[in-house]
Parts: sequence; structure tokens; C-alpha cells
Amino acid sequence: MKQVYFDNAATTQVKDEVIEAMTNSLKDNYGNASSTHSFGRSSKSLIENIRKDIASYFNVSAGEIVFTSGGTEADNLVLRSAVRDLGIEQIITSKIEHHAILHTAEQLENEYDVSISYVNIDANGLIDFNHLEQLLKNSNKALVSLMHVNNEIGNLLDIKKTATLCKEHGALFHSDTVQSVGHYKLDLQEIPIDFFAASAHKFHGPKGVGFCFIRKNSGLKPLIFGGEQERGFRAGTESVHNIVGLGASLKLSYTNLKEESTYVKGLKTYFISKISNELPEVAFNGCSGDLKQSTYTLVNMRLPVSEEKSAMLLFQLDLKGIACSKGSACQSGATSSSHVLSQILSTEELKKPSVRFSFSIYNTKDDIDYLVEVLKELLSN
Amino acid sequence: MKQVYFDNAATTQVKDEVIEAMTNSLKDNYGNASSTHSFGRSSKSLIENIRKDIASYFNVSAGEIVFTSGGTEADNLVLRSAVRDLGIEQIITSKIEHHAILHTAEQLENEYDVSISYVNIDANGLIDFNHLEQLLKNSNKALVSLMHVNNEIGNLLDIKKTATLCKEHGALFHSDTVQSVGHYKLDLQEIPIDFFAASAHKFHGPKGVGFCFIRKNSGLKPLIFGGEQERGFRAGTESVHNIVGLGASLKLSYTNLKEESTYVKGLKTYFISKISNELPEVAFNGCSGDLKQSTYTLVNMRLPVSEEKSAMLLFQLDLKGIACSKGSACQSGATSSSHVLSQILSTEELKKPSVRFSFSIYNTKDDIDYLVEVLKELLSN
Ligand SMILES: Cc1ncc(COP(=O)(O)O)c(C=O)c1O
Ligand SMILES: Cc1ncc(COP(=O)(O)O)c(C=O)c1O
Repeated sequence: MKQVYFDNAATTQVKDEVIEAMTNSLKDNYGNASSTHSFGRSSKSLIENIRKDIASYFNVSAGEIVFTSGGTEADNLVLRSAVRDLGIEQIITSKIEHHAILHTAEQLENEYDVSISYVNIDANGLIDFNHLEQLLKNSNKALVSLMHVNNEIGNLLDIKKTATLCKEHGALFHSDTVQSVGHYKLDLQEIPIDFFAASAHKFHGPKGVGFCFIRKNSGLKPLIFGGEQERGFRAGTESVHNIVGLGASLKLSYTNLKEESTYVKGLKTYFISKISNELPEVAFNGCSGDLKQSTYTLVNMRLPVSEEKSAMLLFQLDLKGIACSKGSACQSGATSSSHVLSQILSTEELKKPSVRFSFSIYNTKDDIDYLVEVLKELLSN
Repeated sequence: MKQVYFDNAATTQVKDEVIEAMTNSLKDNYGNASSTHSFGRSSKSLIENIRKDIASYFNVSAGEIVFTSGGTEADNLVLRSAVRDLGIEQIITSKIEHHAILHTAEQLENEYDVSISYVNIDANGLIDFNHLEQLLKNSNKALVSLMHVNNEIGNLLDIKKTATLCKEHGALFHSDTVQSVGHYKLDLQEIPIDFFAASAHKFHGPKGVGFCFIRKNSGLKPLIFGGEQERGFRAGTESVHNIVGLGASLKLSYTNLKEESTYVKGLKTYFISKISNELPEVAFNGCSGDLKQSTYTLVNMRLPVSEEKSAMLLFQLDLKGIACSKGSACQSGATSSSHVLSQILSTEELKKPSVRFSFSIYNTKDDIDYLVEVLKELLSN
């Protein structure tokens, strides 16, 4: 059966070159990067070269990059330490953040004397900057956490504007950039951000590795204590092969950014125009139908289907070999309804099934033609 | 140049079968295990089958195994949540534990109203069980954390006796079993332990993945918050290929346990007898010279070398292609002196260089002959 993978915001296929680099490193670099003998030094130098490469993409220094076990850990590291060690008393975020932010903030609210304020968003999920400014004006010791690219509806945040606003009001700014790193370039000499989080499996690298940008002299302390790895920011033997995979995939992504993003944007554009022509009753959620205000990598669509048929929809797509998701990236197809859509859609709109299709360089126009055919068939029944 | 790797307590060479399984999984199982479509389900079923296998080795149920990014994270998860969520007021441990325990306990002492008590050890690093019993008698809401195999001096703890004692006194018992899992079998129907931690790279698996045993209904909560992965115990997209590597390496270790452990024990026995005959001035630290009271995988030796020459010793061994370590497993060759040895050796003894040699199935008697020759040469200069 034809199998088409349209769930690239949940996770991506690992590139062949990345697998090869990881396999070689598993074979050749089994030394512990903390060991001073030759086996250890060769692992150490691999890691440090990758750290330098990554720092260069973002125009920061190598010492500001800390490897973690993924995006979730990076988000937890920043939020927990900001509250515990930097005296943050208020977390300003939005209700459409990823659970790695929302559930962590809620847990910290239980544990510490910290309050959470949610910035208003409109019916498209766009941040109300006036409200953000108002919150910042009345704040004291605040950390703002707003994601660059929303994983469900694809909305793009004006990250420079947000960072500048935070800085003007003396607030720290963290961004969950898990959906944007590898797909967008960020120049941190231009963007006064304090922290950001990334995860390799969102840009054709391995799962279980990511990194955190932590601006120099931030005062942040570890989430995980023990050995002195990562200059004391993150204890635990470094996952050399995973860091190698992260390094290789990010290098490929940024080296080929122009071609790859043009290609993937082309697919999204093609899909939107086909849908608009052939299934005009379909609605786009958030800004995902608008290429200027959303990422080129995904669309989130509300389908004109009756409530009874709605439950079966993902299942039917799966039967046709189409992998996509509703719910969040990390809980694709989760049965509980999306916390993001429930913030922006009306009760009536929520009754219709919404599906996210997310694209990568491994998709083709043929795949999209097939998807549109299948959708037409399912919607006509 | 001849290269011999005698630092298997720091980390081990990944077995070819393990690399192959990981490479295949990177190619074929890139689905997110939380996705309900076919790509996701195939990742999910891989992970759940491995969880069942692991549970069976320890005679526990699959729901009691939680995958983590390694041993350090598992230790942090248990200690932090025990203090924060289970109301633990006293951590009873020893000064020769790994830093993943010691530094975490110290951090918790700073953050919470919890005290740390260190059980007495003798000059060989053996736990004083009378003192432990006394501490337990006077304790209230205590968590005992004592490692099964000491990573520096190899001492074996009587884990069943310790667990039973803890249970008798109503204390929780965690064991850092990072150096023993894969090398020893533990039957948890016999050992009333509450938690233990393991790390794949200590038994020829990949770095950056491990697991935590958490006894049913423990009340433990996550260290890392976000998605509902690992039945809510550990958020973050599962590192499928790493879990596959963990599963493959542990299966190989336990399937071949008898042959492999006999072989490695043979190497240690051979080394000890050669040293005793040819370099009788060498002393063994802790119980490492005694095969009954220490692990078969390592020795820790004090060399009869003057203070001036001592600093150069590891460097000279490295020049001869011999990888070994002083300091802890995670900080092999670290320049700071060992916190373990400083607890059991006299000031005079600490002036002599101590070196740990740790063995695996990839070492041979030839390697050991070479090592002894090199040691004789270095000690005679
Ligand atoms: C926006 C966002 N943040 C955080 C995460 C978590 O990253 P990871 O699964 O690597 O922990 C994800 C996806 O999984 C995500 O889409
Ligand atoms: C006894 C012990 N505990 C914990 C650890 C930490 O494990 P990991 O490096 O996988 O985090 C190690 C070695 O690294 C160890 O030897």
C-alpha cells in the first residue's frame, strides 16, 4: 500500500548522511568524553567541534550551547532554574504553548511562589502585543516564554519584537524554538533573547537529543545534577553519537536551507491552492493558511464532516496509508482534543475534525495529489 | 601503536549487533511513538516489547520500567521526587557514592528541609551495617541510597540485606546499580528494593539512555514535565533507536552472562595474580583485590611511585596506548583527586597514584600481559 508521511511536525525521517555519521561514531568514538586518554579526547573533540558549529549558526559563543536529551528537557531546564535560581516570580506565556512549557509552568506554580499570566491571543492564535506590554509593565521579575513557531497551527511569532519588548521591560525571554530551529535562521546578535530550546528530531536528526541556548552569565543552574559535563550545566555521560547526529542534521539543514525551504514551501503552497480549488469548504486553523504569518512546514485544517464521522477520520486516513495528526506534535492522534484549538475555535468549530498535515523534503507533489484525492473521497461519502 | 582499552567502568565499546539494531531502527522506525498512525505504532511496539523484556530480567512488571536519558537522570528522578513528592526528610547514603547521588542530595539539602546522613565505611570502603541500622532506628521518612557496585573501587554491596533492613525500618531504598546492571542479575521478587537506576553504555550499549525501576504505586512524579510519555513519568519524545540499543545490549548481556562474566573474571584473576607475582609492592584499593567482595570487572591499584612521578603516570600510560582512569567513572582522569579514595586512604597512601583498570569481553590476556610489561617498565624507571 502507498504510505505517505505528512507528520513531520511530530517527527521527521532521519537523513541517510545523519545515520551514517551516527553509525560511524558508534563504532569509532566509544570513549567517554570526560576521559583524558585518547579514546576520551576523540569523543570530546567531536562534541566541541559540533558545539562551535552550532554556535556559529546563531552567532553566539560555543559556551552558550548546552546539549540536552531533547526539547522538553531544555524547556524544563530554563523554566525550573529561572524560578528556583534567578528569583523569577511571574511566568508570562500563552495558552497555546507546547505542554513542555505549560505543564512545567503549572508544576512550578505548585512548587514555588510563582504566578503564571497568559497573554491574550486572537481567534487566529496571534499574540496581543498590547496585552503583553501591559503585563510586562505591571510585572516584576518576570520570565516570558513564547514559542517561535506553534507546533499545531504553525503561527510565526515576531521573535525580535518580542525579545526587544522583554528587554525594554527588564524581563527574561525564553523561546521554545523546537519547531523553528533547522527551518529558520536566528541571528542572536539581532535578537536579544536569553534562552531557547531545540530538538534534533524535528530537522531530520535523531530523537532524544537537543540543545539549549543559555546566554552567558545567566546564572542558570542544572536540572540534572552529578558530574561536571557541559561545563556544569548538565550532568550525565554525553550521548556522543546523538550529538554527532544533531550536528550533522543541523549542518545539512542550514547548508541547504534555501533549497529545502523553497521546496517545502512549494508543497504547502501547492496543497493550499489545490484545497482552495477542489475542497473550498475546508477551513484553515490559526494562520496556517497564510504563508506570511505561518511556517512553511505545516497546515492545520478543519474539515466539513459531520460529528459522527469525525471520530473515524484519522483512522480512515491511516487505512489509506496517510500519516498525519490531530492534537499536539508529541501526542499526534491523541484522543484528547487539542488544547491549542480549544483556545481559538468556537464550540461549533470544535465539533468539526481538525487535522494537521506537516511537510518535509521527503514529500512530493504526487504525495499531495494522493492526499487530496483521498480527502475528496472521504469528504464526499 | 598498540591501543588497549581498560576503562570499561567509564564506558564500553558498543557491540556490533547493537549498532546494527540501532542503525536499522534509525532507518525504519522514525515514527513518533506517541503517534497513532502506522509509523508511530511500529515505534511504540518496539519500545513496549523492550520494556517487557527488561522487566522480565528483573522479575518485575513492565509498568515499573521508565526509560531515561541515562543513569544520572534516573538517580535525579528518584532523589528529587522522593524529597519533593513523598515527604522524605532524611537521605541516608555514603560518601563513596557517585556524584549523580551525592551532588543531587546536596542540592536537595539546599532546596528542601531534608538532611543527609552518611553511613560509616571502613578502610576498605565496606558499609558499617550496625551504623546503618542505628541510623534507620533513629530515622523518620528516610530514603536510603546505596550503590550496588562502586564504580571506583568495585566493592559489592549486599543489596538484599540492605533492602531487607530498609524495609524492616520503613525506609525507602534506592540503589544506583549503574555498574551492576548487565553484569549481575537481580531478582526483585527476592530483593525488596523500591528504585534502581541503570545506564546502557556500561554494558556495551549506547550512551544517553538508561532506565529507572520504580516500584508500583510509589507516588513518584516526573523530573521532566511535558507530554504524557512513559505513562506520565518522563516527558519528551522517546529516543527509539537508543531504547532499541539499550534493549539489544541488555538482552545480549543477560543471554551470555555466564560465559561473559566467566571470561572477564578470568582476566581480572589473571591480572591480580600477575601483579602479585611480578609487582608485589602494588596495593589494591578498597575490596578490588578480593574477588568475593568486589565486582569481576575492575581493579583499583595504588602504585609504588614517588610523588613527583605520580602526576605523569596516566599521561605515560596514555602514551603507551593504555586507556585507564583515576577519579570517577564519569570523570576518568579528572585532575581533581577521587572523592572515593580520599574517604578510605590515609594521607600517605593518597600521595601514591591510584589507577583503575576495568575490563570487558573485548580485552584479552595479551592485553594484560602488555599492561603488566608497561607497568613494570614505568615503575622501574
Ligand atoms: C514546540 C515543541 N516544543 C517542545 C517539544 C518537545 O521536544 P522533544 O520531544 O524533543 O522533547 C516539541 C515536540 O516534541 C514541540 O513541537
Ligand atoms: C555508579 C554510577 N552512577 C551513575 C553514573 C552515571 O550514568 P550516566 O553517565 O549514564 O548518566 C555512572 C557513570 O557514568 C556510574 O558509574
